[in-house]
Amino acid sequence: MTSTTGALLGPGREFERIRTLLADLPAAPGVRVGPGEDDAAVLADGLVLSTDLSIEGVHFRLDWITAEEAGWRAAMAALSDLAAMAAAPVGILASVAVPGDGDLALPVMAGVRGAASRVGAPLLGGDLTRSPGPVVVDLTVVGRTEAPLLRRGARVGDEVWVTGRLGWAAAAVRDWLQDRSPIPAAREAFLRPTPRIAEAQWLVAAGATAGLDLSDGLAGDAGHLAAASGVAILLEARALAGLAPPGLEGLDLTLHGGEDYELVVTAPPGCLGPRVEEFVKKFHLSVSRVGTVEEGQGVLLLPATGEGAAPVPRGGWDAFRDATEPKP
Amino acid sequence: MTSTTGALLGPGREFERIRTLLADLPAAPGVRVGPGEDDAAVLADGLVLSTDLSIEGVHFRLDWITAEEAGWRAAMAALSDLAAMAAAPVGILASVAVPGDGDLALPVMAGVRGAASRVGAPLLGGDLTRSPGPVVVDLTVVGRTEAPLLRRGARVGDEVWVTGRLGWAAAAVRDWLQDRSPIPAAREAFLRPTPRIAEAQWLVAAGATAGLDLSDGLAGDAGHLAAASGVAILLEARALAGLAPPGLEGLDLTLHGGEDYELVVTAPPGCLGPRVEEFVKKFHLSVSRVGTVEEGQGVLLLPATGEGAAPVPRGGWDAFRDATEPKP
Repeated sequence: MTSTTGALLGPGREFERIRTLLADLPAAPGVRVGPGEDDAAVLADGLVLSTDLSIEGVHFRLDWITAEEAGWRAAMAALSDLAAMAAAPVGILASVAVPGDGDLALPVMAGVRGAASRVGAPLLGGDLTRSPGPVVVDLTVVGRTEAPLLRRGARVGDEVWVTGRLGWAAAAVRDWLQDRSPIPAAREAFLRPTPRIAEAQWLVAAGATAGLDLSDGLAGDAGHLAAASGVAILLEARALAGLAPPGLEGLDLTLHGGEDYELVVTAPPGCLGPRVEEFVKKFHLSVSRVGTVEEGQGVLLLPATGEGAAPVPRGGWDAFRDATEPKP
Repeated sequence: MTSTTGALLGPGREFERIRTLLADLPAAPGVRVGPGEDDAAVLADGLVLSTDLSIEGVHFRLDWITAEEAGWRAAMAALSDLAAMAAAPVGILASVAVPGDGDLALPVMAGVRGAASRVGAPLLGGDLTRSPGPVVVDLTVVGRTEAPLLRRGARVGDEVWVTGRLGWAAAAVRDWLQDRSPIPAAREAFLRPTPRIAEAQWLVAAGATAGLDLSDGLAGDAGHLAAASGVAILLEARALAGLAPPGLEGLDLTLHGGEDYELVVTAPPGCLGPRVEEFVKKFHLSVSRVGTVEEGQGVLLLPATGEGAAPVPRGGWDAFRDATEPKP
């Protein structure tokens, strides 16, 4: 879970360096997609595996949300990696550590189970132990797919589409950090993300060429897609404006906020446009064209003002990207 | 990882109650063996899954062992759940949290990778994040088996066999707790357990009827086997004496010490006896007959003195089973 809150409360650049170092794994026999390449590993037989660690004080705070909400969010964030691969859930394993006599494990697990049953993922195992301090929730998700949605595969000329609204979860985090109460829609977006599993499968069947879930903010995740596919992603500010939370910082939150757990996909021109209504009716969720795939590299933004496209600065939210370490 | 050290430093009875409560899972479709029933879940297609959480200050202390040793032990303990099911490793996923700038992640992951490659389990994924305090290592192991070794299946008249020596890891923990240096063989047993995966597969092929790995001590784990199979297990003190660490507490450590990660299996009479030499030659490891399966329930001990068998008292090590909570 590389994420807004993780980044907000958590590691700095040195940590990212080590994370990158450890993600550089040798290819193993029987592994179709390695874990460093995409959101999850895909084995030769279509088994999809991913693991996601959430820690109190780093990924969530129990003065912001309840223990049950923390369990729900942790499970949903993990299950979103199955959506990122367009994999059907096989199940989830939950390791939980709580301080004291263990009472907190019950609401945490109630949240995990609620989220898992929401997407039809049975609990396949778990471990419960005492924590000397923070609540720890580690979820491993298991899924299956014959046609994984990969980060690589976007082609020049493809359109870029996203599901839902973006930046609302980050708006809640921003408000909490500034000791303000978030608006209900933002709080709800943070607390109750929904893995877009069926949506991802629909988009693959409809012809999506590449994609992933939005955990790090659209700019960062579109950057992953661009790098893996060897292309540039051009985003249009005018299209994003309709998805952003209210306020002056709306576009910045949309681009850099993270933890939306919506999807970004690329698809051939004209492929999804005629089917928007069908998607909305089926999933009660919007799907919006927000840009195009171009030759080049990185993520560019076409401003609403009509000026030329410019590279999206990495980390518009650097100012509070890391509340615990000095800026470099 | 319900274990000596876990129990030593960790949870009390209330915690165990909650653990039991959470393990009581509804049967899910496609699940052949549920996680509450055995050491790991087994899906209909033979996929085996288990997860095992280790936390600094609860399961290990970095003044006893190095970060690399902690990673190795955590991985080996998790992989031992594959041995418990006689499953071939498919891979392992590692979630790690470390304090500070992340440097400790490198030796922890070196230990995890070393242990995993020792048994041919590729690293399939992972997560690395900052911890606000303790080092956290959560491992999910994935395996496959057509013929799982289950806790149920022992039949009255079967013999009871164990691999290797028992109680040596617990002897090291006892010494550390008493501020003494453990003898090298005990320290090694604690630091470098080896999952008996190939051994378990051999024993199943040779006719073992039931079994599991020894993580909680022979008395406790034989008790799991007895309960799942609806039988009593009669252990012979004379046979155990040859496996125990030196000293007056040897038998007690063997019965209650935990974290040996050897195997206990049951097999029809005469099935394994003639093949001991073959086993020893193949695996450079002893295999010993230590008792029989009887009608009844629970675990009984036949004293070396020739007196009648008596139920094994639960927790000879209660005196330091929980160093952090008052005795009930």
